[in-house]
Amino acid sequence: MKRDTSITVVPGGGVCSARGFRAGATAAGIKYEGRDDLALLVSDVRCVAAGVFTRNVVKSAAVQVSHSHLMNGTAQAVIANSGCANACTGAQGIADAEAMCSLAGKPLGLTTDDVLVASTGVVGTFIPMERVEAAIHSLRLSRDGGDKFASAIMTTDTVRKEAAVTAKVGDRSFTIGAAAKGSGMIHPNMGTLLVFITTDAAVESAYLCDCLRRVVDRTLNMVSIDGDTSPSDTTVILANGASGLDVFTAQNGALFEHALDEVCREIAISIASDGEGAGKLIEIRVTGARSLTDARVVARTISTSPLVKTAVHGADPNWGRVACAVGRSDAAVEPDRMTILMNDVQVMLDGVPVCFDEDLLRASLEESPTLIEVDLGIGGYEATAWGCDLTKDYVTINASYTT
Amino acid sequence: MKRDTSITVVPGGGVCSARGFRAGATAAGIKYEGRDDLALLVSDVRCVAAGVFTRNVVKSAAVQVSHSHLMNGTAQAVIANSGCANACTGAQGIADAEAMCSLAGKPLGLTTDDVLVASTGVVGTFIPMERVEAAIHSLRLSRDGGDKFASAIMTTDTVRKEAAVTAKVGDRSFTIGAAAKGSGMIHPNMGTLLVFITTDAAVESAYLCDCLRRVVDRTLNMVSIDGDTSPSDTTVILANGASGLDVFTAQNGALFEHALDEVCREIAISIASDGEGAGKLIEIRVTGARSLTDARVVARTISTSPLVKTAVHGADPNWGRVACAVGRSDAAVEPDRMTILMNDVQVMLDGVPVCFDEDLLRASLEESPTLIEVDLGIGGYEATAWGCDLTKDYVTINASYTT
Repeated sequence: MKRDTSITVVPGGGVCSARGFRAGATAAGIKYEGRDDLALLVSDVRCVAAGVFTRNVVKSAAVQVSHSHLMNGTAQAVIANSGCANACTGAQGIADAEAMCSLAGKPLGLTTDDVLVASTGVVGTFIPMERVEAAIHSLRLSRDGGDKFASAIMTTDTVRKEAAVTAKVGDRSFTIGAAAKGSGMIHPNMGTLLVFITTDAAVESAYLCDCLRRVVDRTLNMVSIDGDTSPSDTTVILANGASGLDVFTAQNGALFEHALDEVCREIAISIASDGEGAGKLIEIRVTGARSLTDARVVARTISTSPLVKTAVHGADPNWGRVACAVGRSDAAVEPDRMTILMNDVQVMLDGVPVCFDEDLLRASLEESPTLIEVDLGIGGYEATAWGCDLTKDYVTINASYTT
Repeated sequence: MKRDTSITVVPGGGVCSARGFRAGATAAGIKYEGRDDLALLVSDVRCVAAGVFTRNVVKSAAVQVSHSHLMNGTAQAVIANSGCANACTGAQGIADAEAMCSLAGKPLGLTTDDVLVASTGVVGTFIPMERVEAAIHSLRLSRDGGDKFASAIMTTDTVRKEAAVTAKVGDRSFTIGAAAKGSGMIHPNMGTLLVFITTDAAVESAYLCDCLRRVVDRTLNMVSIDGDTSPSDTTVILANGASGLDVFTAQNGALFEHALDEVCREIAISIASDGEGAGKLIEIRVTGARSLTDARVVARTISTSPLVKTAVHGADPNWGRVACAVGRSDAAVEPDRMTILMNDVQVMLDGVPVCFDEDLLRASLEESPTLIEVDLGIGGYEATAWGCDLTKDYVTINASYTT
């Protein structure tokens, strides 16, 4: 029996769109002057919570602490800061991250374990705890604090990353909202830099973990800005059940996963579009692969190729670079079966060049986004990845980041 | 019994330094105007020959043809061109590559099989065979044609890459010389773009193959400019025995490998130094790894990290990026055992920051080369890799290569 269900975007929605969440931010002066850099997100009640974290062996103190606080499958708040990643900071870093949870939780009557922590910024410096302690008391939470939260966690980001959708089931509904940051050192192996997702759906713990992992694998984990994996990558979801809608049934489960997919895809695209120095979003669609792993590895290899990224930057229809990236991807590939399209123009068919109107393609490559489609022609699996062009601005931004 | 042996550099030496080799080049107008782009290298007698080629699944026609011509372990000449890679060109590309060998070999009385072919340039275009055919007759070979040969194979290279050493055994000697090109799409998985090595030592075929593979693995395969693997990577060595010195004895074998190592290391460093847009050579030394594979993968991951490369470009002592690159390398790593030095300055010890004079380090990072040393502290294996900084010029060069 098919019930009346729908998913609609919440315009201007974010981490406070779901019922029962409040957020706020303040300026602690951790690295940046005169802007918010310390942010807090709180649910009215304890949430079922799940998280996925970086696979980099060098894990930030915040990642290690949040991971341990999620062991019991619940959480009620997230304290986050920009300007310092609290990574490569040893035992002192762990103590600082625990202290941040404790300082944030105490005024709310929460235990340290109820609070998750996320830090982003320079690797190899310590959190200036006296500044955090002084500022944390001035944090004011409100139902419309989502934008403030999303702004405070930005580093080299140039735009806030937020998204929300509402899913209707008959005359009831639940909402999923998210805030994220991410612009450089982006090649997520689990979550991507920092993504905070909230929902008022009631979700069972094990299902929430599985669902988050599946969705992240096909959305956030398919974004790459520069191939460098951060020690801070964190995606957490808090489900407080305030909608009264229980998604732990087959049909609502599929609806929840679909809604979460939309939110995470929106965040993934906004992160790729705002890659450090990026002028253009690149979407890579791979079809005809022999396995899902192959489809993903081919899409990601193309999205990280400096030669593909610079060609797109220069609006240069140099499709040979796409073919070469496919060839070095370690996926099963038969060169004579491969077909490539750029912005809907077929440039290679069955491994050999196709005549095409170069001026027309060049003109379309001046616009963003750029669509690259590769059909491997040897199987039924497909994947999509998102990246951005490589520009002089990326070099400028990263040649002087700590200074 | 230890005999009197020594290895000395041949100043200005190259592919004609060994006895019995001649070379030349001419302008065929394949892509570039008014410069040599077609080059020929010939031995007076048939040589024992070996080659290593790209591991990219998309292999150029030249690579496929040269690989098959080396099946019998001998060769006498190499025809090479710049401006067109003859890759992604299907059956027509193979026919063109065979025709190049035939055209080059006929006036010299050589069979097609005696000639190897190498092509470098744009992927996905056909060789203009009528121009090659018209130009090939004007090729003049001479004993001092090594520089002309090395110049003709350049694409975005800004300097010729040549090297030679003479090894003495008592009062006799043999020489090994090389010419190479390589500047972008450099992340060799076997040879590197194009490297041609000649020697007048007498070397047995199987030994030459093994020795070349070992040396390439620790020299040319440890260079990375941008992580993109070319379909054209080719390293071939021709040994004509003209010195009368047979290296197939234990002691001369070691001397030969040592001499070949010096030549290939010199070529590797000159390729990394001349990376597209490069301002600085980066040398990465990894020690204390649990295996040789781990040492190599850590060194190469650091050398390809865009964030490390831009930090070096900006003379920014942002060592956290080195630690993060190590952490994502897939090698066995214990963060608390890791130590990092930049230009002899210790910046991280056992996983935590060390106080250092930032201004002093910043000043030394303005100079080339930059030395990055990582001690993993968990084993006895080591490796060295070479790369270069990532600059705006890399973006400029590659945003408009085919145009």
